[in-house]
Amino acid sequence: MKQIRIGLVGVGTVGSGLLQLLEKNREIIKERNNLDVQLVAIATRTPERAKAYTSLPVSNDVISITTRPDVDIVVELIGGTTTAFDVVHSALRHGKTVITANKALLSEKGDELFSQAWKTGVELGFEAAVAGSIPIIRTLRDGLSSCEFEVLCGILNGTTNFILTKMEEENWDYSAALKKAQDLGFAETDPTFDVEGIDAGHKISLLSSLAFREKVPFGDLQVEGISKLKSIDILSSKSLGYRIKLLGISKKTSGGILTKVHPTLVPLNHPLANVMNEFNAVYYKTVESGAGMVTGKGAGALPTASAVLADLIFYASKFGVKDSIIENNIFPKSEKAEEKENAARYYLRFSTLDKPGVLAEIAKVLGKNNISIASVQQKEADKEPVHVIVLTHSATEGDFKKSIEEIDEMSSIIKEKTVAIRLLENL
Amino acid sequence: MKQIRIGLVGVGTVGSGLLQLLEKNREIIKERNNLDVQLVAIATRTPERAKAYTSLPVSNDVISITTRPDVDIVVELIGGTTTAFDVVHSALRHGKTVITANKALLSEKGDELFSQAWKTGVELGFEAAVAGSIPIIRTLRDGLSSCEFEVLCGILNGTTNFILTKMEEENWDYSAALKKAQDLGFAETDPTFDVEGIDAGHKISLLSSLAFREKVPFGDLQVEGISKLKSIDILSSKSLGYRIKLLGISKKTSGGILTKVHPTLVPLNHPLANVMNEFNAVYYKTVESGAGMVTGKGAGALPTASAVLADLIFYASKFGVKDSIIENNIFPKSEKAEEKENAARYYLRFSTLDKPGVLAEIAKVLGKNNISIASVQQKEADKEPVHVIVLTHSATEGDFKKSIEEIDEMSSIIKEKTVAIRLLENL
Repeated sequence: MKQIRIGLVGVGTVGSGLLQLLEKNREIIKERNNLDVQLVAIATRTPERAKAYTSLPVSNDVISITTRPDVDIVVELIGGTTTAFDVVHSALRHGKTVITANKALLSEKGDELFSQAWKTGVELGFEAAVAGSIPIIRTLRDGLSSCEFEVLCGILNGTTNFILTKMEEENWDYSAALKKAQDLGFAETDPTFDVEGIDAGHKISLLSSLAFREKVPFGDLQVEGISKLKSIDILSSKSLGYRIKLLGISKKTSGGILTKVHPTLVPLNHPLANVMNEFNAVYYKTVESGAGMVTGKGAGALPTASAVLADLIFYASKFGVKDSIIENNIFPKSEKAEEKENAARYYLRFSTLDKPGVLAEIAKVLGKNNISIASVQQKEADKEPVHVIVLTHSATEGDFKKSIEEIDEMSSIIKEKTVAIRLLENL
Repeated sequence: MKQIRIGLVGVGTVGSGLLQLLEKNREIIKERNNLDVQLVAIATRTPERAKAYTSLPVSNDVISITTRPDVDIVVELIGGTTTAFDVVHSALRHGKTVITANKALLSEKGDELFSQAWKTGVELGFEAAVAGSIPIIRTLRDGLSSCEFEVLCGILNGTTNFILTKMEEENWDYSAALKKAQDLGFAETDPTFDVEGIDAGHKISLLSSLAFREKVPFGDLQVEGISKLKSIDILSSKSLGYRIKLLGISKKTSGGILTKVHPTLVPLNHPLANVMNEFNAVYYKTVESGAGMVTGKGAGALPTASAVLADLIFYASKFGVKDSIIENNIFPKSEKAEEKENAARYYLRFSTLDKPGVLAEIAKVLGKNNISIASVQQKEADKEPVHVIVLTHSATEGDFKKSIEEIDEMSSIIKEKTVAIRLLENL
């Protein structure tokens, strides 16, 4: 039986979950995979806390794990992009295969790490970095390896999906839903990464490179979060037949790959519309197989640890195999997609003063900028602002921005900044 | 670059799709996977027809392909369980890795074939045999390899899902929907395999063995199809908050693995309820990661061929690699699940005469057999039979059968055989 020696760095939520699974499933893995996965070293910056989960000695020297000759595979679960970078880079340089759940690290510093892995001839597994328990990395690499992707989009952040679900189901406003998510441990005290779409951006940039084999660096992404959304947007969208989801979207255009994150009005009968609470999902269309979707728990100790363990089993099975194909994560940079390909239909909520002629003024500006109105809703209100909800036909990003800037400056009619949400394109 | 030489046996719907994909994607596969996939031999029982799809010579000697020294991997796409068995068995015996889309063959004669593959040290890939383009085999093998399954169930037959969708959406009866499916090429002239649940049974028995690592032979499955369903069942279910789907279900019980195929009332808000038309889906629950689902096109030339090609890329990448782990598809036979674990809630449609006291008689028999009624619906009817729709609380298979047999014999009140559909258990 093949013996694989693991060094674990980081014993937080996911790390402690992994310790639990290794304990519970070690015999099963022996039997099924002919692999004996042995944990030989653990390091964390707070060893005291880790001792609750393991009887092994716990070191606070996270780098030392990466150089030990008795470690075959290093699992990095400390998070962040500083110490984690040093750990992963050192491990790769010292010929260790590395498994990580760290999307921020890979999205921001992946270039250097993947190059190092390739140079040393080792591998860097990151199934757990995107969409928790959903095996989307192996699905893109192996299951759909024969397919030419047209589009890939997904609900990649469980926190924001939970918040949006609660805003709808409980009729809560954004801050109440955020607080609930924080109370339940779904959201951090500083929720910026999640609610502003940064986390989803890291993830879609990783997935996109695997699907299209071209890289769209995180810095090139257009990223918008959900913090501007109000109850009224959730309700108005629903009455129009849509549900708002924070989507990471990546699609092939005639120029390059267009990748972005923004709240999106998804038709209620679309599979993505029915992915609720902390669940994640990835929806795709390929030339060969048409549409498909995978969904499952996107976060949590055991779901994420199960993805780490699946990676461990996969790479450990290849470990030491002669002539084994090493997965190469180095992709050429995509050309920039042309502006005109970034067109969308828009949901626009204008918050206006309660006076005559407001709609005419708004319509005039939209018309002047080539934006055609598909529908208008204005509900009777007993206090200002009055909300005017407009669905537009397809408009380019440029025309849209110009219109909104112009309208938001019309202080004679506009009371609060306009909220704009794109509709899901024809997927 | 690694060169892999392919022998293709069978050029029907999927075979011609594969020829198309190999042509279109050969350069992409070279670039992405460092593999040159070369088609070197083709055989089919009807060579004339195949010539439309290829400029290579086409032989009618399907066995000869399996012994050629210049063929590394044999792709079997002729279907059926006789000639196909000879082809696959001969190829495996001659040290060829085999890729097949043939679920009937593997479900009925897999034991012998998987043993032969293991004996010769080659592999038998069958991603395309279940759920077309959905990469469920690799998902179970690799993506979820760390998980302990509790249940796996799915919509595994596109024809019946199409028929059920049309019965609901167009308000057609079963035979009209079947005819439409046949006209569109989704159903065979003899639709028995599909509509009686046999095809779904083959597929769930294959998936079940991968998920639970125990084998439930097809012969041990309880299999029920959709041919008894009427429009009224579709409509009544919907008014009760359910949609009828033909599910293959496999679950862990305290005894063994319980595996079965039957029409099932799925709550409308369950992800499986929203998989429509010819789409397939597999829903699962594991101890580690909770619930998840994959969905996509379950049939069709290119979707299925894309799965064959994904298998080709996967096994070709491993081909000739020293010490490579060979996947072993030989699983111990599962114990038989205990009868009492096969309990379900039931939807019962009694077709009765229009006279007083009918409901009382039915209720009496159900009560005597420990079956408790959850709800009753009886619509006013202007002609017989009168349909009485009963939802029960959970009942064992034995109690249920006894009741229905007894009731169906009461010719003083019953006009047609009772239709019974199980409700989706708490998934």
